[in-house]
Amino acid sequence: MTGALLTDLYQLTMMKSYYDHGMEDVAVFEFFCRKLPEERGFLMAAGLEQVLDYLENLAFTPEELAWVERSGRFDARFVQRLERLRFTGEVVAMPEGTVCFGNEPLLRVVAPLPEAQLAETRIINLLHFQTLIASKAARMVLAAPGKLLVDFGLRRAHGAEAGLLAARAGYLAGLSGTSTVAAAARFGVPVFGTMAHSYIQAHVDEARAFAHFARSHPRNTVLLIDTYDTEEGARKVAKLAPELAAEGITILGVRLDSGDLGDHARKVRRILDDAGLGEITIFASGNIDEYELEALAAAPIDGFGIGTRMDTSADAPYLDCAYKLMEYGGAPKRKRSEGKATWPGRKQVFREMGADGRIAGDTLALEDDRPPGTPLLVPVMAGGKRIHPSPPLVQGREHAAAQLALLPDAARRLHGPRPVAVAVAPSLPALAERADRGTR
Amino acid sequence: MTGALLTDLYQLTMMKSYYDHGMEDVAVFEFFCRKLPEERGFLMAAGLEQVLDYLENLAFTPEELAWVERSGRFDARFVQRLERLRFTGEVVAMPEGTVCFGNEPLLRVVAPLPEAQLAETRIINLLHFQTLIASKAARMVLAAPGKLLVDFGLRRAHGAEAGLLAARAGYLAGLSGTSTVAAAARFGVPVFGTMAHSYIQAHVDEARAFAHFARSHPRNTVLLIDTYDTEEGARKVAKLAPELAAEGITILGVRLDSGDLGDHARKVRRILDDAGLGEITIFASGNIDEYELEALAAAPIDGFGIGTRMDTSADAPYLDCAYKLMEYGGAPKRKRSEGKATWPGRKQVFREMGADGRIAGDTLALEDDRPPGTPLLVPVMAGGKRIHPSPPLVQGREHAAAQLALLPDAARRLHGPRPVAVAVAPSLPALAERADRGTR
Repeated sequence: MTGALLTDLYQLTMMKSYYDHGMEDVAVFEFFCRKLPEERGFLMAAGLEQVLDYLENLAFTPEELAWVERSGRFDARFVQRLERLRFTGEVVAMPEGTVCFGNEPLLRVVAPLPEAQLAETRIINLLHFQTLIASKAARMVLAAPGKLLVDFGLRRAHGAEAGLLAARAGYLAGLSGTSTVAAAARFGVPVFGTMAHSYIQAHVDEARAFAHFARSHPRNTVLLIDTYDTEEGARKVAKLAPELAAEGITILGVRLDSGDLGDHARKVRRILDDAGLGEITIFASGNIDEYELEALAAAPIDGFGIGTRMDTSADAPYLDCAYKLMEYGGAPKRKRSEGKATWPGRKQVFREMGADGRIAGDTLALEDDRPPGTPLLVPVMAGGKRIHPSPPLVQGREHAAAQLALLPDAARRLHGPRPVAVAVAPSLPALAERADRGTR
Repeated sequence: MTGALLTDLYQLTMMKSYYDHGMEDVAVFEFFCRKLPEERGFLMAAGLEQVLDYLENLAFTPEELAWVERSGRFDARFVQRLERLRFTGEVVAMPEGTVCFGNEPLLRVVAPLPEAQLAETRIINLLHFQTLIASKAARMVLAAPGKLLVDFGLRRAHGAEAGLLAARAGYLAGLSGTSTVAAAARFGVPVFGTMAHSYIQAHVDEARAFAHFARSHPRNTVLLIDTYDTEEGARKVAKLAPELAAEGITILGVRLDSGDLGDHARKVRRILDDAGLGEITIFASGNIDEYELEALAAAPIDGFGIGTRMDTSADAPYLDCAYKLMEYGGAPKRKRSEGKATWPGRKQVFREMGADGRIAGDTLALEDDRPPGTPLLVPVMAGGKRIHPSPPLVQGREHAAAQLALLPDAARRLHGPRPVAVAVAPSLPALAERADRGTR
């Protein structure tokens, strides 16, 4: 996950030209999202840990250098420069789990131009995806307070890394865990699982399948009951439960995965309750997202498996984000491209709180400005190394929960959300004018 | 990319139960997409090579086994079974690049139940993503015949693997190449690149930036001209070209990345043509998809960088696909869940061609049926090993191009496409009845 070739070719061609022309001064780049998707009232910053891993380990392997040489596009001198290249810069960033809004930098890189340039592609790739997923997952957390929410999305996530990092970002945002084993092994995300239809189908008799599974997992039995007929499945569970109880096995729950989940849940709840099995929980899955969670809020469902729509952020599968040069060799820089103009300089986000304990407004300003509010970006890397050891993921998860509690109603609502307004300090247009005067 | 823990926890819990109860007979699973997204008239099968890599290399490492043991969910006997586990089965599949439709199996696995079960998650993960992207990319290829189309999507792809595999799937579907260096190194996809705004911004003078770049890459100069003012940028190129020509440097092209791309392209073309620079090509990027390509068909644009909307399949970011048990121990199997019922048995897709050389219709039948048409699934793996060495990616790309030529107009059109009808052979409902009688 840390390959130096995980980049666009133009980063290498620009680097060669920077070296050719002695352009190795300090550059300042910032990562930000221009405008939130219509369906989002806030973003949740995520992915920083993977960016820091990437930067700390950035180096070309002999195989990667051999490819660069073989490509025929670069000279031996350039390959030697790449061989020595490490990331030696500083990073300032919002802690993972921080809620944020349009045009706010989530991260700033300050490093010699070639290093900061090379890292662009992977930095965007890592921050974009986890921020995208944490933002989506946070909406589900807000839509289903008190419910068990588990990521089931690996199979339809966009590749292995997407599945792993979606499990991580979902847990950060407040989900209870994931079904992805590798995410448990790598990130310590709590792991959950039930059974698949194939397990039931492989048996001739559904009730026997239930019993087999329960005996294999006496302390962890959640039975999938919709393979043939959901209510019939529930009746089989009701009949089986006392037999298993006699063996010391407790059925924890049943899972529904098709049809009208609310309607089935009510019928299944009645069947189980009538059999004195009020403690068996009902878990549901299948096309769940925040809108479904809202629609099912009154149904007797204790937990949900959330898959594709979270792991792909299906209603808004990307953010309009960028990593742009803000300063080079001490001079402010900006682009003025139509619809994509940027504010130059080293920026900070200052957040003011209202009397109600919610966010009242953010101000985008220069780092040295002192508008009212608390700065959100903090130093995390210096000299190419982390300043502090990484906080455990659960700490980011606690921060995320605290941050969600700060959102005003307009930003947190599911339908027609409105992000918090971000004011622009007067120092920014002034610096933009200076940047414009300084380029031709 | 081949980790055995890239799976859902329930695969492991089910496997344990299969071992506990001696359920190691031969299972048949098939991967298929239920219904195409509304915006798609066809799918293009892709990802098979990565599935075969995964299956050939499937094995638990000591670290992975240690995690399973530490998890506290499994006994030592199960861990020993996992240690010995390899994939020993057969695979039958559509060659990559084949066009296909709803409910058609793209791949069949025949293997002892625990092996076929474990592999479910990663098989879906790999086939789903590349099929999703190849299907999206193929629409762009159809929308822009004769244009240079290059994948620029790594930065907003969902993680590293998504970026790499999107570059591969895009090239398979007919794109010219990618900007992703690692996709060139790993898969041999042709790699392209221009320059970023930061390169221009790091210079005080845009014209000097152009000259610097051209001197660093005298045979490969494409200049980005929209950082400050697109037409002004084009005039600087026109002024610079003769000076560079005197040094033996030819500017290959210019890139536009903002504003009304068609309008800018026309103005830039005129500026360049008036300066006698008719051979300088115009390349455009920014929010490109098949609809933009169609809208820009008449603009004087020679090539496009295609990013986010392809690498995330933005208008349809997932497919409704599944991997389901069709047979176990010789008996046909199916689920009857509402809206998700499946046809049992080992199936084949038979394709009939019309007099016009286009696909007339497909029939979903049992493998041993002999309806009219040519079977699409072919054996690719036996005894856990590839039957033939993998074909080079360019061969799949040629197959894909030939397949696209077979699509009827209704399936290939961008707006309101209609997939080819898939008939169901009478043997399938007959077998479904048998399967239903055989389960309770």
